[in-house]
Amino acid sequence: MTPEIIAFDADDTLFINEPYFEEAELKFCSLMQDYLSQKDISMAIYQAQISNLPLYGYGIKGYILSMIEAALEISNHRIPSKAIGKIIDFGKDLLNKPIELIDEIEETLAYLHQKKYKIIVATKGDLKDQHRKLHHSGLGRFFHHIEVMSDKQLMDYQKLLERLETEPSKFLMIGNSLKSDVLPVLELGGFAVHVPFHTTWLHEKIDHEVQHPNFWSVQKVSEIPALLNL
Amino acid sequence: MTPEIIAFDADDTLFINEPYFEEAELKFCSLMQDYLSQKDISMAIYQAQISNLPLYGYGIKGYILSMIEAALEISNHRIPSKAIGKIIDFGKDLLNKPIELIDEIEETLAYLHQKKYKIIVATKGDLKDQHRKLHHSGLGRFFHHIEVMSDKQLMDYQKLLERLETEPSKFLMIGNSLKSDVLPVLELGGFAVHVPFHTTWLHEKIDHEVQHPNFWSVQKVSEIPALLNL
Repeated sequence: MTPEIIAFDADDTLFINEPYFEEAELKFCSLMQDYLSQKDISMAIYQAQISNLPLYGYGIKGYILSMIEAALEISNHRIPSKAIGKIIDFGKDLLNKPIELIDEIEETLAYLHQKKYKIIVATKGDLKDQHRKLHHSGLGRFFHHIEVMSDKQLMDYQKLLERLETEPSKFLMIGNSLKSDVLPVLELGGFAVHVPFHTTWLHEKIDHEVQHPNFWSVQKVSEIPALLNL
Repeated sequence: MTPEIIAFDADDTLFINEPYFEEAELKFCSLMQDYLSQKDISMAIYQAQISNLPLYGYGIKGYILSMIEAALEISNHRIPSKAIGKIIDFGKDLLNKPIELIDEIEETLAYLHQKKYKIIVATKGDLKDQHRKLHHSGLGRFFHHIEVMSDKQLMDYQKLLERLETEPSKFLMIGNSLKSDVLPVLELGGFAVHVPFHTTWLHEKIDHEVQHPNFWSVQKVSEIPALLNL
């Protein structure tokens, strides 16, 4: 492959994310433990999140609003207001988390940056939060810019390529989600590299393997330059 | 001026927005009327919004989280959980509002679209919500793409121009906010047209007049083609 634009997903591709959400969910389960089992509480949050996705989109603010909604429902509106204040604090904690880089990402980006590629970030999530994280990651200097997308389905990538004024055959997407970073890009005719992270949000899971001539799976981002014959 | 890129603000420039927020605020004041006067409740929301801006950014989700926080504070955590559910519904109502176009915007965009300009939307707010509104407005066909910005300060416009790979002298911004759509663009060396809307959020207000060789103020968007000598 000879891409002109290389796009990196952000969460769990550049820096750690999902473990922070899991930590917040555990705190929520502990807050709600008088009402339901941990498993049922987790399912209630997930259901609220998924049903609110068309309205809220991805990111921490929608997650917290869904958590509050789940808390009202689980407790049949008996949850004390102080607990609602705690849930808001869970969200603010998430929005203030330190940035922990994924192994070898900085060296890999520095190497690719010296080459001829236009390197961008293409991520879902809250706009402000993704800008904050990229800024604090110190990785911003390697990227032409950041594209925060409201979703990562086929049509969203189509729009992305239009605004980048490029074609699928010149586009490589790198990320940890087969569902969001790989499948729609392959379907469009682009290239994709999967770099798995040790934990994946239920919503991002798929139940089949991916095999495609434009697709590679690597264990570490540092394997990517070799794929590009660098 | 001979811009290559013309950027339109969205809220209260393409379609009506602020009156919907004012309506939500009135509903909130009525919900909280046992605790404080309407004026003090409005001030409490505003203070929560402003103090949360660095964390939440602009848009409805942050607004609702700030409203919930204000409700907890105003009531000293005595507000019933059902009222929290109502505030979440205020937010969902806002996210489901119909799109009402600003007078003459469609004709003006159609006219400019025939010319050689790259026309984009440059707006703050929630990503998903701005995409939804643009889609439902029917105006999407006139725009090359939409840029949802986490803020509209000098640095944000600088980044925008970098990603558009253009220069300030080729950039015209059109919007209803002197603070967000006009001043930073002029400071950067770009062009700006102000199209006032009948109501403005307190945070967007400035206390002085703008006079600048690159600046025009018009009563209606339909006056813009003449400014471009079309």
